[in-house]
Amino acid sequence: MNKLLISSAAFALLPGLALAQDADVTPTMADIGFIFTTFMFLVSGFLVFFMAAGFAMLEAGLVRGKNVAMQLTKNIALFSLASLFFYLLGYNLMYPGDGWSIDGMLGAFSITSLEPVGLEGAEPDLTYASVGSDFFFQLMFCAATASIVSGALAERIKLWPFLVFVIVLTAVIYPIQASWKWGGGFLDAAGFQDFAGSTVVHSVGGWAALAGALILGPRLGKYKDGRVVPMPGSNLALATLGTFILWLGWFGFNGGSQLYMDTAGNVADISRIFSNTNIAAAAGAIAALILTQLLYKKPDLTMVLNGALAGLVSITAEPLTPSLVSATLIGAVGGVIVVFAVPMLDRFKIDDVVGAIPVHLFAGIWGTIAVVFTNDAANIGTQLYAIIVVGLFVFLASAIVWLALKAIVGIRVAEEAEINGLDMAELGMEAYPEFSNA
Amino acid sequence: MNKLLISSAAFALLPGLALAQDADVTPTMADIGFIFTTFMFLVSGFLVFFMAAGFAMLEAGLVRGKNVAMQLTKNIALFSLASLFFYLLGYNLMYPGDGWSIDGMLGAFSITSLEPVGLEGAEPDLTYASVGSDFFFQLMFCAATASIVSGALAERIKLWPFLVFVIVLTAVIYPIQASWKWGGGFLDAAGFQDFAGSTVVHSVGGWAALAGALILGPRLGKYKDGRVVPMPGSNLALATLGTFILWLGWFGFNGGSQLYMDTAGNVADISRIFSNTNIAAAAGAIAALILTQLLYKKPDLTMVLNGALAGLVSITAEPLTPSLVSATLIGAVGGVIVVFAVPMLDRFKIDDVVGAIPVHLFAGIWGTIAVVFTNDAANIGTQLYAIIVVGLFVFLASAIVWLALKAIVGIRVAEEAEINGLDMAELGMEAYPEFSNA
Amino acid sequence: MNKLLISSAAFALLPGLALAQDADVTPTMADIGFIFTTFMFLVSGFLVFFMAAGFAMLEAGLVRGKNVAMQLTKNIALFSLASLFFYLLGYNLMYPGDGWSIDGMLGAFSITSLEPVGLEGAEPDLTYASVGSDFFFQLMFCAATASIVSGALAERIKLWPFLVFVIVLTAVIYPIQASWKWGGGFLDAAGFQDFAGSTVVHSVGGWAALAGALILGPRLGKYKDGRVVPMPGSNLALATLGTFILWLGWFGFNGGSQLYMDTAGNVADISRIFSNTNIAAAAGAIAALILTQLLYKKPDLTMVLNGALAGLVSITAEPLTPSLVSATLIGAVGGVIVVFAVPMLDRFKIDDVVGAIPVHLFAGIWGTIAVVFTNDAANIGTQLYAIIVVGLFVFLASAIVWLALKAIVGIRVAEEAEINGLDMAELGMEAYPEFSNA
Repeated sequence: MNKLLISSAAFALLPGLALAQDADVTPTMADIGFIFTTFMFLVSGFLVFFMAAGFAMLEAGLVRGKNVAMQLTKNIALFSLASLFFYLLGYNLMYPGDGWSIDGMLGAFSITSLEPVGLEGAEPDLTYASVGSDFFFQLMFCAATASIVSGALAERIKLWPFLVFVIVLTAVIYPIQASWKWGGGFLDAAGFQDFAGSTVVHSVGGWAALAGALILGPRLGKYKDGRVVPMPGSNLALATLGTFILWLGWFGFNGGSQLYMDTAGNVADISRIFSNTNIAAAAGAIAALILTQLLYKKPDLTMVLNGALAGLVSITAEPLTPSLVSATLIGAVGGVIVVFAVPMLDRFKIDDVVGAIPVHLFAGIWGTIAVVFTNDAANIGTQLYAIIVVGLFVFLASAIVWLALKAIVGIRVAEEAEINGLDMAELGMEAYPEFSNA
Repeated sequence: MNKLLISSAAFALLPGLALAQDADVTPTMADIGFIFTTFMFLVSGFLVFFMAAGFAMLEAGLVRGKNVAMQLTKNIALFSLASLFFYLLGYNLMYPGDGWSIDGMLGAFSITSLEPVGLEGAEPDLTYASVGSDFFFQLMFCAATASIVSGALAERIKLWPFLVFVIVLTAVIYPIQASWKWGGGFLDAAGFQDFAGSTVVHSVGGWAALAGALILGPRLGKYKDGRVVPMPGSNLALATLGTFILWLGWFGFNGGSQLYMDTAGNVADISRIFSNTNIAAAAGAIAALILTQLLYKKPDLTMVLNGALAGLVSITAEPLTPSLVSATLIGAVGGVIVVFAVPMLDRFKIDDVVGAIPVHLFAGIWGTIAVVFTNDAANIGTQLYAIIVVGLFVFLASAIVWLALKAIVGIRVAEEAEINGLDMAELGMEAYPEFSNA
Repeated sequence: MNKLLISSAAFALLPGLALAQDADVTPTMADIGFIFTTFMFLVSGFLVFFMAAGFAMLEAGLVRGKNVAMQLTKNIALFSLASLFFYLLGYNLMYPGDGWSIDGMLGAFSITSLEPVGLEGAEPDLTYASVGSDFFFQLMFCAATASIVSGALAERIKLWPFLVFVIVLTAVIYPIQASWKWGGGFLDAAGFQDFAGSTVVHSVGGWAALAGALILGPRLGKYKDGRVVPMPGSNLALATLGTFILWLGWFGFNGGSQLYMDTAGNVADISRIFSNTNIAAAAGAIAALILTQLLYKKPDLTMVLNGALAGLVSITAEPLTPSLVSATLIGAVGGVIVVFAVPMLDRFKIDDVVGAIPVHLFAGIWGTIAVVFTNDAANIGTQLYAIIVVGLFVFLASAIVWLALKAIVGIRVAEEAEINGLDMAELGMEAYPEFSNA
């Protein structure tokens, strides 16, 4: 009896336990995992948000001076429109089976509504995260998909038709196919593995860009008398900055896709993901550096930048299970793909201004396949099946939208506008009014 | 008895509880909320810190090439001086009623002193956050206020008088008015609502800028023969980068202003704030994009950038209570305000180089009023009262300082220096020595 | 008895305690500290990662236009190679005494292997952090060391020999000397204090750069007829952006070096570190601003930028124990050192393109000495001893590598290539093809 008495008294005297009884002061045990995971989504989400700046700088650096202001306008506008239409439609369309984000009868076609202030009257699922943080994080993935498209079609597409495409992509096309995997749809049921979206995000952007590039056609003078005319980017410092920002954002992109940070095992997994993501990018850059030196006798900075990005895309389908050595190899193959794919696209006269199709589509396919090497849950047949199904859907849906826009309003600027630059023609302003000699 | 014995024994065997007894190994329950909130302040704080870079890039991009190095110098110098004078005087002046940050007898006029290393001998308020994290976070708000001023007065103000103004603003003017609301002063007592500072930060910067712009006068040649002469910014890529960085930093600015992250309710609220902040910025950008297309037939990138910033300022007074739809509308009105206010200021020959007054003052006033639409605790009369009281105080105090500086040392560079550019005249260096054709 | 019964029943009914029994749902008490510290390393780590972008922008801004693409290539390549070789060799070499990161018999010469997915089968040290997060964080320090070198040797060193040096530095030289302090080696045993690496990181980069600068020689035309020919940087906006990014990253650099965030005391200490780091940077900038005004009658922006960086390096050896006032003074002295050291190096015809040696070596030495003023555990004799031992080792090892590279492949580009710029000569591309007048 005495011993028992002491034991109970000891509990009562522990300051931690004493406070635990006062639920107003500190988090309850039930809150703690919720706070960890929610905050992790917010931090990951702001990192992925910053990728919008990364895409903007990468693309502004890789277009010619006369089109920089337009490329900047497209990037900030597409992110803004994605933000709007993803909550108006996309988010609930992406999670049709989830009761927790659906308001009333409209279900999958309803506007996103966040939990009430202070969670008052709500019964949040404390084993996961707040709806707001999940929405914030998922929105950034949707916006990234649209950013991929803008680079490929730069220097010749009209602003407003491009923005209409962005609306359809972010409100409808992206959410529908994302629901197949991440919304618990048929690809998920089939066992398709895509941790952070080599297919669901990157190849989707790539397919939409490819459809657009084919329908839009190459820039004037790009392919002339059987030769490919180089049109060097105006500001490689910005392009490099953009690449570093994207690399930074990718820690949130892949790390946040762990979806939980409420146990030691989950946070250790996020650490693995950070380390693997970093080495895959590095390996992609090194592979492109060495390969361009060997092939062309001179290293090519834009290839190195795209090599790093291709390494990142490659590891995105499975950043968790690979060892550091495997992640290195997966990323390096991504870098190799870019070096060969960029001239290959040119051979087919597909004009992709920034290399978005090699980086996001080809390396995205590679990354989706590479899952089978390190994750036993993945099956090569299922991976290929998903690549094809998503590819067909997005390519066809995008093509229909592009063709409709072409038929109705036209998607290409006038020849004179393209020659003089979209900045003066469509915006009436220049990005660098004092510097450009062009 | 046996049951009781088992029950107590079960507690003793739980690993979590067993560890909880060993206070050296893991946080105690009492520590956990403190760690969450403190870390949230540090993360929010570094995001707001980065806004200093955002302002620097925005302003460097919107001035002409010959004044870029000076604008960069002003930005890094003003942030550094704000860092110094806010701890020497501002912080304790801002929280005069708080015992925890005050050292000895001097009270509100004392230097900031942080908690001892390891909290040894301290009795921290474990229900809040560390003094150091609160100081770090608050400092960044004070510095942001000064950054607002530098953009409006660019291309003609002398460096040192400007920096003297910054010292007075950050050490005295900002902290005094901030104490009225955030230091528990009379505006707080009156029920004034300003969650993250549409008035306390943004309109304060705007009023100080307006006083300066009126006393300093417009740039040479800006208003000529009744016409407004456009003086386009030298680098819209930098201006766009700056806008994205500010947008990123704003998640910390508004999110951190929740002030607590120690419960599920608080972190869910921070998620709401992140989502609302993002959509308000997006709506401001879209509104400016559409409106400039309609008004001028061509979208205006600088208006879109300022539209996004105005959306951010507009949601800052109340980023928590609005729904996503309300936040969209609040931000969109901010974007509309900018499009109309920029030419309006020009009509009054008030020369605001980067549009800081429309963005931070006008949208700040709008945001402060808009609180009443979604927050029942807000009262339109009190909101207007606070806008007027703060505005009068800051405008008059700033005007006195500007006039005194003008009388004693002069605040405007010589005409020749302004024509040739401040970079060569005041610094003897150029930002882009190899590029500028100007 | 009744009382006892009630007391035990009360515990059983507490929701927090009840949940704590269900280890699957929320973190156990044992997990919480591990999650806090691991997440802190990941956040700090991505901030330090971003310093790679900061160095790239700083250096791209301070070299002439004709060498910008090469400087960008060097920066992304060095970071990528550091990422690769630090896990292949460096990390375990740095922690030779640590069982937890060593795989099998090879011990210190083994490849880094992370903890298994989900920590399954692992017995993690829950009182610290995940191996992956520690590796991620430490890698970024190693890469920063290499970044320091690239700036000093810009505009004349060949790409590939430089990258070979980077491999030796990051795989061998850095880890060996880091093991002496941070791996529990003899300098640690001797009581050497270097919180975040004024010596272990910054002076190491500085010594390696100094050895390289001496062996490589100055740029053509830099010292002519006894005069120092100014070669102004091509883009001070980028240099300023780089400085702000480095400043941001430094919060992770110094804050993360607390190594624990699992108690109220630790997170309060990290708050102190953030505040002190910020004020030291500010003080360095202000000191350089005032001093260049006094010495040259005109403030010098590049000196202000380097002053801020020197302030940061100065506080890095001890960012925790100083008061805000002490941190101000420590940082200000760093700024003063830079203003005097830059021309002093020129007097010795040591051509350091970006001022890396004054900032990282001289301020690093100062910071290491300054520890004795605020940390009682530090001893001036031991600090000097460590400075000398590390300096001798790194300088000699670096010199041997540089001399070997010089003898075998040559480290300097051809005279014509240097005059025309490394971009066209070594890369066949320009960073700003449309702008440069040079």
